[in-house]
Amino acid sequence: MYRLYHAPLSPFCRKVRLVLAEKRIEAELLEERYWERSSDFLRRNPAGKVPILRVDGRNLAESQAICEYLEETVPTPALLPKDADARYEVRRLCAWFDDGFFREVTSNLLYERVNKKIQGAGYPDSGKVKAGTKAIKFHLDYMAWLLDKRRWLAGDEMTLADFAAAAHLSALDYTSDVDWGRNEGVKNWYATIKSRPAFRGILSDQVPGFMPPPHYADLDF
Amino acid sequence: MYRLYHAPLSPFCRKVRLVLAEKRIEAELLEERYWERSSDFLRRNPAGKVPILRVDGRNLAESQAICEYLEETVPTPALLPKDADARYEVRRLCAWFDDGFFREVTSNLLYERVNKKIQGAGYPDSGKVKAGTKAIKFHLDYMAWLLDKRRWLAGDEMTLADFAAAAHLSALDYTSDVDWGRNEGVKNWYATIKSRPAFRGILSDQVPGFMPPPHYADLDF
Repeated sequence: MYRLYHAPLSPFCRKVRLVLAEKRIEAELLEERYWERSSDFLRRNPAGKVPILRVDGRNLAESQAICEYLEETVPTPALLPKDADARYEVRRLCAWFDDGFFREVTSNLLYERVNKKIQGAGYPDSGKVKAGTKAIKFHLDYMAWLLDKRRWLAGDEMTLADFAAAAHLSALDYTSDVDWGRNEGVKNWYATIKSRPAFRGILSDQVPGFMPPPHYADLDF
Repeated sequence: MYRLYHAPLSPFCRKVRLVLAEKRIEAELLEERYWERSSDFLRRNPAGKVPILRVDGRNLAESQAICEYLEETVPTPALLPKDADARYEVRRLCAWFDDGFFREVTSNLLYERVNKKIQGAGYPDSGKVKAGTKAIKFHLDYMAWLLDKRRWLAGDEMTLADFAAAAHLSALDYTSDVDWGRNEGVKNWYATIKSRPAFRGILSDQVPGFMPPPHYADLDF
């Protein structure tokens, strides 16, 4: 019995949701207003963050640790390769997106525009939004450079790295922050991963007060 | 042939140095002035961060991905347990220190006081230093709570989680930011890990302009 406490546009929650769905693990989804830091929530995760995956009475935190756990306990389909060099590259790219991309892009765009409003935390900082708008171009170009040499981000098989990247980009696409016209390779990669059954859940997300653009859930965008 | 590009007080570099030393992997250490973002450096790691581990001509980045790689390629002595639940707990705690502890403590204390000066990036923000001084108490208490139930942070064996924590605390100890009188369990844990041969390298670090306190390298502090 799996239950995920999550926030719909959180890229870290989306990564875990994609892994759960790809591995066909049924999980009950519960939205968590994590910024209200309820005592129940802090007991489940003293770090005060989502996602939290409840498995057989244990509360698991930290999205990358959760994904590695799911990979080890439900190994099929595999989202990490067998070879150590290839596994390293997947983990490097997960960190690339969950650390650098998050700090430079997701937190500057999505968190400034959406999270602040939902949490009543004031207005977007225009300097940060500008920095995010500039940084996403560099990151899309880096992805294009990788995809020019590889079928998927970390190699010729789809891995957790693709889900980490798609989790961020799909959340940013909800607020029209991704210029899909910039790199054809990136657009084709996203079209392929977006059409997987595992993606259906996040394409049907609705955040009150923020309507996604029509192309958000369109597989032929 | 291993070569590590590092910065002496970086907790992420220290974690990798501890793992290399514990696994008796000889590595050449080269200090990298990463904030100058030389083109050679950015070619090695476009994310612009240390550590970078050069192995057989490849440049590996992201400290956690590097440590997992070292664990898979040089498995003895093991720094991750065999059981999936136990491995999860190690990875959760690595993220606890490298994400939350880093953001709330290390970046507010060490980066404000030391890195800014070394990099000529201005004066410490007193609000951040104050927040860090407050946050480290919560984190030391959390460690004490864990160590009250366990011999080591993630269980009854020493793991990568202990090295992740010790990497941050040793860097903060260099600037006298750790109150070892607060929790006896934490002090005993640190005394044990500090006395390992793997720790010798980081205890002999010297950063020009910043002398460590006398107790820094003292095993009987």
